[in-house]
Amino acid sequence: MAYRALDNDTVIDYLLNQSSISDLFKTDQNLTAREIGDGNLNQVFVVDDGLGNSVIVKQALPYLRVAGDSWPLTLERIHFETKALKLQNELAPGLVPQVYDYDEEMALVVMENLNRHELMRKPLVKRIRFPLFADHISTYLARTLFFTSDLYLSGPQKKSLQAQFINPDLCKIQEDFVFTHPFMDSPENQWNPLLDDEIAKVRSNGDLKISIAAMKAKYMTEGQAIIHSDLHTGSIMLNEFDTRVIDPEFGFCGPMGFDIGALIENIILNYLSHFSHTPQEYERLSYQEYLLDLVRKIWNLFAEKFEKLWLENPKGDLMTKGYWDYPGGSEDFARYQKWYINNLLRDTAGFGGCKMLRRMMGIVSVWDITIIKDTAKRAVCEKMAIRIGTRWILERDRFNCIEDLISIVREESGA
Amino acid sequence: MAYRALDNDTVIDYLLNQSSISDLFKTDQNLTAREIGDGNLNQVFVVDDGLGNSVIVKQALPYLRVAGDSWPLTLERIHFETKALKLQNELAPGLVPQVYDYDEEMALVVMENLNRHELMRKPLVKRIRFPLFADHISTYLARTLFFTSDLYLSGPQKKSLQAQFINPDLCKIQEDFVFTHPFMDSPENQWNPLLDDEIAKVRSNGDLKISIAAMKAKYMTEGQAIIHSDLHTGSIMLNEFDTRVIDPEFGFCGPMGFDIGALIENIILNYLSHFSHTPQEYERLSYQEYLLDLVRKIWNLFAEKFEKLWLENPKGDLMTKGYWDYPGGSEDFARYQKWYINNLLRDTAGFGGCKMLRRMMGIVSVWDITIIKDTAKRAVCEKMAIRIGTRWILERDRFNCIEDLISIVREESGA
Repeated sequence: MAYRALDNDTVIDYLLNQSSISDLFKTDQNLTAREIGDGNLNQVFVVDDGLGNSVIVKQALPYLRVAGDSWPLTLERIHFETKALKLQNELAPGLVPQVYDYDEEMALVVMENLNRHELMRKPLVKRIRFPLFADHISTYLARTLFFTSDLYLSGPQKKSLQAQFINPDLCKIQEDFVFTHPFMDSPENQWNPLLDDEIAKVRSNGDLKISIAAMKAKYMTEGQAIIHSDLHTGSIMLNEFDTRVIDPEFGFCGPMGFDIGALIENIILNYLSHFSHTPQEYERLSYQEYLLDLVRKIWNLFAEKFEKLWLENPKGDLMTKGYWDYPGGSEDFARYQKWYINNLLRDTAGFGGCKMLRRMMGIVSVWDITIIKDTAKRAVCEKMAIRIGTRWILERDRFNCIEDLISIVREESGA
Repeated sequence: MAYRALDNDTVIDYLLNQSSISDLFKTDQNLTAREIGDGNLNQVFVVDDGLGNSVIVKQALPYLRVAGDSWPLTLERIHFETKALKLQNELAPGLVPQVYDYDEEMALVVMENLNRHELMRKPLVKRIRFPLFADHISTYLARTLFFTSDLYLSGPQKKSLQAQFINPDLCKIQEDFVFTHPFMDSPENQWNPLLDDEIAKVRSNGDLKISIAAMKAKYMTEGQAIIHSDLHTGSIMLNEFDTRVIDPEFGFCGPMGFDIGALIENIILNYLSHFSHTPQEYERLSYQEYLLDLVRKIWNLFAEKFEKLWLENPKGDLMTKGYWDYPGGSEDFARYQKWYINNLLRDTAGFGGCKMLRRMMGIVSVWDITIIKDTAKRAVCEKMAIRIGTRWILERDRFNCIEDLISIVREESGA
């Protein structure tokens, strides 16, 4: 079927014509559809049968929504999103939405409606705790990264996967808006005017600029695994019991630390936002400690699970078994693992730092911070974020454990 | 035309049916063909008109030649070779053979016959000097690497190139035979029995094994540029005036230092071989100094030309201009360039070291060394090579100029 943009009526007709999907509903009679997309790139419909069954239909639009058809966009992002979702469903079942159907020509994917979940960003502002989250997300990270890396795959398998995830347009967005434009004059940059001095300093800090350029080179060239590549707390839907990672359209073969860095950076920005959101000191300190502990647990559980997967699945071409088969070889292999995982920590700090800075001075901040309307209060958190991000980047080569990152957060936030 | 393996007769008929090619000859009447291939993977014919015009026809065979049709091979390597040759002809004209025609179905490429050139390995053993070689090969390296990197290309252009050069089968050969099998028990390994102790030590040297594994990870994941990936002195044909790089079928998007490392490692192995080939001390020392100077010139000219191309073509997405546009920014950019190029030197040492070791203990050594029939004499050179390779790998992170690599050669060879 040739591409046509659906609406609340035609989406129902479309679904009813797909036998595999109409089976998901108890009745075809009373289907209702509602467009709920708030993004700029896609239409998102919930289609419901009124009897407790519903699906999401996500359709890419061939133009930037706010700009109308004067800003054309390619549709292939939904192809990468679906491919990534299917892969992640295999590798980390239960931690991403299920895919029911994909229609390439219609640039459309039908998937599980996560209507018992909410986007993580919001409850974090309300100081909600998610006791299972660190366990869930560390499993997601360890499994999606390990199983798509050269530690698990043969060279040819890895290259075939890499070829399927060459995703130039969405990579370009991150290359520009995470690593470049925020750190130079560019019309789309926005920041709190109270940060003018800090931002000028970042932009002319030679050591920092060189390090950011180095992290950008890593992002552009280091194909370690199929990464999500946009894993902020707005790409996670969850509740007390269940966690799902959504929106993987940026997925490509890139550096593992970018995913982990994006996640913990978002948690630290939320941590900082509580200096404004939670004036009651006891509540604030208590929740901030919870968040630091969350960061600690995410990293430590990730590292533990990743290492375990590696030990249990020594199959990849980076891990030829006989290579370590000599007296003392298993100790050397353990040292190699430690070295490898420690490099992931340093990359996590470097990428997390870049992303923390770009949220303060680039095209888009995070909701946790932008809802602070008092610019002076906001500047307090933002200045801390700039100092933390800067130090994570500049000091990354000395980091050996997650406490090294956390203690910088404490030092720079006075906690 | 469906694939069929050509022979000395059918190759002439084939060419006469290709109008674009038959124009290259002065006459169609007296064409003669001669199969000259000595490799295991391809047939190579010289077709000559007896009047000074000739071409090379290189055809991939669907099986390993020595093993006959019991060892099937894919034909796609000739596709990568032709693609790479065409790209290199654009980027480094005059430094690779010209391509006249490519026939995908026949797995065949027709190209310039370099009959005034010889493979570099042999004249180096005869102590021949090539006054223009350092200039030529540094131009080849600087131009092919720079223009296929993110320093010159936009992100999407680079990714499109990377996608065209995903070359899993030939990458796998290097992954196994350069970085893995030589350093473990593997039936195809061969070495001089007088090296048993040295080889056992290499195989159980934990720091070294970890570093080799790190270089392997870089080879498998770091897509800096389209590299030749097999640039030894048997992949270079030259004479006093002219230099051509041949056989790029291993080409893929990989780390730049692998090419430079392969080249200088081969020159150092030749340097060591003269302890046996050239017993007259004056002649030996004089030629060895020439070779060390060649290594110095290749690196220094490469670095100079690479930096100049970068300054003159600041177009790539790793080099967004406004990023360094602030007071002191051009000094910081110069520091970044220095840092970037110095990392290439360290990679050159690491990859060169791995390749030097594998030539001593893997499936295939180099002709310069294997022609030394006296195993005791050969062991002298080989032990030096093992020590140099080991130190290049282990000490690479402290290297800041090519003298750092050269002084290790001097120390370990007593020169």
